[in-house]
Amino acid sequence: MVKLKGFQKLTLTDQALETWMRTWRVVNSQSTVVSLQDALSRILAEDLVAKESLPRFDKSAMDGYAVKSSDTTGASQSKPVTLQLTENQEVKNGQARQIWTGNPIPKGADAVVMVEETKKIGGKLEVWCQVTLWQNVSKIGEDIKSGTLIAKSGTRLSPYHIGLAAAMGHSELKVAQKPKVAILATGNELAEVGAPLTGNLIYDSNKIMISAECKELGAQTTDLGIARDNVDEIAEKIREALKTHDAVITTGGTSVGGLDLVPDAVNKIGKPGVVVHGVALRPAMPTAVAVLEGKPVLILSGNPVASVIGFEVFGRAMVCRLLGMSKTEPRSMTKATLKRKVVSALGRKTYVRVLVTLKGDELFAEPVSTKGSGSISTMTQSNGFMIVPENREGITEGESVIVHLFGTVEVSS
Amino acid sequence: MVKLKGFQKLTLTDQALETWMRTWRVVNSQSTVVSLQDALSRILAEDLVAKESLPRFDKSAMDGYAVKSSDTTGASQSKPVTLQLTENQEVKNGQARQIWTGNPIPKGADAVVMVEETKKIGGKLEVWCQVTLWQNVSKIGEDIKSGTLIAKSGTRLSPYHIGLAAAMGHSELKVAQKPKVAILATGNELAEVGAPLTGNLIYDSNKIMISAECKELGAQTTDLGIARDNVDEIAEKIREALKTHDAVITTGGTSVGGLDLVPDAVNKIGKPGVVVHGVALRPAMPTAVAVLEGKPVLILSGNPVASVIGFEVFGRAMVCRLLGMSKTEPRSMTKATLKRKVVSALGRKTYVRVLVTLKGDELFAEPVSTKGSGSISTMTQSNGFMIVPENREGITEGESVIVHLFGTVEVSS
Repeated sequence: MVKLKGFQKLTLTDQALETWMRTWRVVNSQSTVVSLQDALSRILAEDLVAKESLPRFDKSAMDGYAVKSSDTTGASQSKPVTLQLTENQEVKNGQARQIWTGNPIPKGADAVVMVEETKKIGGKLEVWCQVTLWQNVSKIGEDIKSGTLIAKSGTRLSPYHIGLAAAMGHSELKVAQKPKVAILATGNELAEVGAPLTGNLIYDSNKIMISAECKELGAQTTDLGIARDNVDEIAEKIREALKTHDAVITTGGTSVGGLDLVPDAVNKIGKPGVVVHGVALRPAMPTAVAVLEGKPVLILSGNPVASVIGFEVFGRAMVCRLLGMSKTEPRSMTKATLKRKVVSALGRKTYVRVLVTLKGDELFAEPVSTKGSGSISTMTQSNGFMIVPENREGITEGESVIVHLFGTVEVSS
Repeated sequence: MVKLKGFQKLTLTDQALETWMRTWRVVNSQSTVVSLQDALSRILAEDLVAKESLPRFDKSAMDGYAVKSSDTTGASQSKPVTLQLTENQEVKNGQARQIWTGNPIPKGADAVVMVEETKKIGGKLEVWCQVTLWQNVSKIGEDIKSGTLIAKSGTRLSPYHIGLAAAMGHSELKVAQKPKVAILATGNELAEVGAPLTGNLIYDSNKIMISAECKELGAQTTDLGIARDNVDEIAEKIREALKTHDAVITTGGTSVGGLDLVPDAVNKIGKPGVVVHGVALRPAMPTAVAVLEGKPVLILSGNPVASVIGFEVFGRAMVCRLLGMSKTEPRSMTKATLKRKVVSALGRKTYVRVLVTLKGDELFAEPVSTKGSGSISTMTQSNGFMIVPENREGITEGESVIVHLFGTVEVSS
């Protein structure tokens, strides 16, 4: 626990997340059936099990000739075996039938001789090598046996899952319904994008940015607009949203100007209300997490970068659970060599924005330095987070670090 | 050049790609204007330039008091300076006005003293430290100056680009229209997913899988169904599709059973037709690339894994160019330690499917071994490709390799 002005104490990041996640469960896990065409990136809501074996039948793995393996015993280039070519359904002793990759093995045959190891002479075939039982044959169920678990419930469906489901004849899949997340911005200083900007107003950017993050993970979002800095107005909007949504996210109104309008509003609505407020996390210290009517409420800072980091830690975990995933989906990860030393505060988990670049065969991570950490431009100039743990005061130049990627790696020439 | 049965020669992968890309241009680059709400993952069709400076005005970077910096000269904890608190719009000599992070600096003030460095006594303020000109002030344009390039045309829009665009008051963005890609499967052995499966038929899985890959990149796709193994039928379907699409992709009918039905069909339609057929690429050797009516036609293998690798190399490049991106978007990349040696053929670029796992602070890549490489289950069991270049015969165990990730890294406990 770290003492801090404005907070009686800060809760360690992992502990805050654990406490919050322990306080709510998914109330209404709903699933829906979608066609394979619409299944990309959706989350499986049931185990995907092989309906049948793949291959469905013994098939040739090569272009060549289906034979009885015993007929090829002792065959070699200097001492070829000669077989009779047939086009019948069944291959009998002393016969060979032409076959292409993927074709079913004809009745009677139990191996395939590659075309390269043969020579066709009239209606006969010279075989230059011996094949063993089932050589060059993909046996039924060799890739997947009927009943095999292909992907667990909670898996995000890639093009390859969809391909595999298709190969097994699934034309539809049961996936999680998109959880409904309502997002509220708070602050007298905010104007909606598109509105005229007067005086000292600034455009709200958090709401639409956090909404995009939710959508990227697979949630649907509702824009609750901007609430003024007024506890009753904020409380009313959250109370209403909880009736029809699975979760609420707010931005601003926490530890602003010495006031905690949103935490106060949440605590006014009901129990347990705020379960953690103030996290030993940089730069998202004022984050608060709450539960109302058994549903999660995430209270993010109004500072754009702090709201992004707060969402990264708490919002991803929330949306992934609402989607029925068994654990929080990690970002892509890479190891990279840190190009410049980074200083952090002991006792805080620190998210450092870095730009990862590939130079030749080496990956480098360059911290994106800025005077004020609050500008969202630091997020568009970087492509990943390096996380400095609480027990370190920084990372030295040249150290090999894990980076959690949110953008594509720059390829430097 | 490598000689191979069935192909007079194989073309090196990079050379094949370059030859193809040189032979066509984007004919009709179309853009469309979307609201910020709909801009996620779309591709910018014009440079995004800062409409105004951020911050829009000089603002406080701290909670504290706005002052004239000259009034604090020499102040220290043992020798504080005492200022008069004011609530007026303007701060005059000897005055201080309370200010919160993000608030505009009042007229007359030129610095902010942090609240921690002060003590309020009645209507007066003790200041315990000296501040310099513009200390604790975020100056206008400090984050972004009006006119700064935020993101180039061709950039894929992340939540953070959207947030930054919102902060600058853009409510809409000009993005690339989704290119139209038509996808045709070929093969007498194929049945549509959902149809009853009789005899030795198998379900087509390539079409829907490649369609999902196209969609993931940002294209829209048309399912052209399954063509029988008949040059005229294939040619007719491709010819029709070219009238209303930006590109055509086919699967199967290349180097199958000694026949090249799709390349023959394409060459029948017009010039230049097939520009490369047979690539020194494993496992996608039968891939062919063609151009008809100035539009790209990609001829993939019918083997599911070969079609995936063929798309990875040629399809991604094609869709990215159609989207107006200046270069092919790379996958996420990571360095990992190879857990088992991999053998490959000299002269071929080889895509090896690997499963990348994080163990403690180390990333490992384990080749996903299979007898037959054709099963798409090897794609769902892995999360990345390791690419073995043409000049190597394999990679030794323990070597540090670059992996191109298509799935999330497994976290092992």
